[in-house]
Amino acid sequence: MKSIKIFRQIKNDLKLVEQELKTIVIAPNPLLTEASSHLLNAGGKRLRPAFTLLAGKFYDYNFEKLKPLAVALELIHMASLVHDDVVDRSMTRRGIPTVKAKWEDQVSIYTGDYLFAKSLILISECDNPSVSKVLADVSVKMCEGEVQQLYTAFDANQTLRDYFYRIKRKTALLISASCQCGALITEAPKQTVMALTRYGHYLGMAFQITDDILDMVADQKELGKPVGGDLRQGIVTLPVIYALEHSPMKEELYRIVRKKVKTQEEISRGIEIVKTAGGIEYSFEISRKYLDKAKEQIELLPDVDAKASLKTIADFINVRKF
Amino acid sequence: MKSIKIFRQIKNDLKLVEQELKTIVIAPNPLLTEASSHLLNAGGKRLRPAFTLLAGKFYDYNFEKLKPLAVALELIHMASLVHDDVVDRSMTRRGIPTVKAKWEDQVSIYTGDYLFAKSLILISECDNPSVSKVLADVSVKMCEGEVQQLYTAFDANQTLRDYFYRIKRKTALLISASCQCGALITEAPKQTVMALTRYGHYLGMAFQITDDILDMVADQKELGKPVGGDLRQGIVTLPVIYALEHSPMKEELYRIVRKKVKTQEEISRGIEIVKTAGGIEYSFEISRKYLDKAKEQIELLPDVDAKASLKTIADFINVRKF
Repeated sequence: MKSIKIFRQIKNDLKLVEQELKTIVIAPNPLLTEASSHLLNAGGKRLRPAFTLLAGKFYDYNFEKLKPLAVALELIHMASLVHDDVVDRSMTRRGIPTVKAKWEDQVSIYTGDYLFAKSLILISECDNPSVSKVLADVSVKMCEGEVQQLYTAFDANQTLRDYFYRIKRKTALLISASCQCGALITEAPKQTVMALTRYGHYLGMAFQITDDILDMVADQKELGKPVGGDLRQGIVTLPVIYALEHSPMKEELYRIVRKKVKTQEEISRGIEIVKTAGGIEYSFEISRKYLDKAKEQIELLPDVDAKASLKTIADFINVRKF
Repeated sequence: MKSIKIFRQIKNDLKLVEQELKTIVIAPNPLLTEASSHLLNAGGKRLRPAFTLLAGKFYDYNFEKLKPLAVALELIHMASLVHDDVVDRSMTRRGIPTVKAKWEDQVSIYTGDYLFAKSLILISECDNPSVSKVLADVSVKMCEGEVQQLYTAFDANQTLRDYFYRIKRKTALLISASCQCGALITEAPKQTVMALTRYGHYLGMAFQITDDILDMVADQKELGKPVGGDLRQGIVTLPVIYALEHSPMKEELYRIVRKKVKTQEEISRGIEIVKTAGGIEYSFEISRKYLDKAKEQIELLPDVDAKASLKTIADFINVRKF
């Protein structure tokens, strides 16, 4: 995503966000600094800060007000990744060892807590009650989504509704909040805030669906983590739900999904069944529909340059490879 | 602590806080509700909500404004306990299995995150920037303290300064913040806020020192968890630091402290050395000094009934058995 030019309008400000991120994770304890910086230094798309800044472009753009918010949103995201990696026992992310892999669970848990707590200092600096409320609500719902994912793991009887419930909480809400809060902090009119909030929601849904597709079809090196991880962990994603309904081999897939411990062959076989059933195409189709809805929201926004960037992101989301 | 009458002035309001706590941990997911309610239902002293309410008594007491804050403070405390139990691999707390013991690490991590995120909703409802800032700062420092504790585990060369640094972050700051925020939300004058903040700090320090004494001398049943846990986990507490300096058996103790895996005999022997060296009496003496300082701060407060309660708590803190 770094290679394309969608972030041109905010390129310099995003660099300042990146600098601030690097500074803010410095802790009094060297171990905490190292663990907190680890994921940050591994890179990442910085999608949430980018959305915050772009959303700010639709009204009274003020970088000094937007910066702490943009940094806070990336910190919340990073905190959730660090805890997710402990819970999922993931050993690689973004092509390098996870915090969990390098420092074990003990340090990782507090590192996640620390990154999240740091975001609160920045949010309190924003001094905007609506922003605080939105981000508190999202934080609660993100946990609900993660527990729901654990709760429904290896459950092969899930519906589309169950899936959308989970990915909304897991991913879409924070992206939506990035857009919403960027608009709120510039005191944009209600219609602008609403359109950006909805844009973020639809885009976030498409983003997670694409993630779930990539988990089955990506090149491991490009993805930065092992392929088939969701199936291994029992996370039932959209392509699988489709195949469980439509594949002639649905019973075999059903058995694979429910197995708590799977061989590499079983995972490969599961992916094959999903692919053959058209689960990937179906999921792309759904993500495209979400992206179309996201684009409809862009039409409702004032005519500024950032509109084109939001469109480009929507065009890019489901053709990305990582 | 429930049995004594210090909370008379706030008894009814504390009951309402308790009801609110029970309501607020209800989540859409039954597993999350059960895990979140588990620690709550195990009881606890509700010291932080009590301090918030008592601090509110020194100016314009308004329970509707204080309630969300008092609930939030207990949630922050509970969230930290849930994560601490995962990190320390503790299986019992308050005489019953920990969340970690009942639901394993995965659910426990998100339960801690959830309780903490729920506190943020309440804090955002308070709509008081100073309160938000204080609690964000405390949350960051609590993580720093916990990581420092991991970082210095099994290190037998720690100074008193290292110890006070840790317990301030681990315990005193949140108790201090409970007092401070209770005063802030009533818009009490600066001197009142300051005196209550300092009272909470000194009391919190004495509270943790007493906890660390109890970990060595308490009756396991009253304590609700195994005795000698700190020594087992390599947490070097005040009685141990004293004995490492003053005991004729300091070298034997030094070796025990540094052992990553200890037998029950080694733990008992370590405790014996600490006791014989006078580490317990010394620590009581230090906690008494902190409590004297806490009482000095009470003198600076306006003359209201709550003063007597703060004094009684200070008198009770280091004679408690659990």
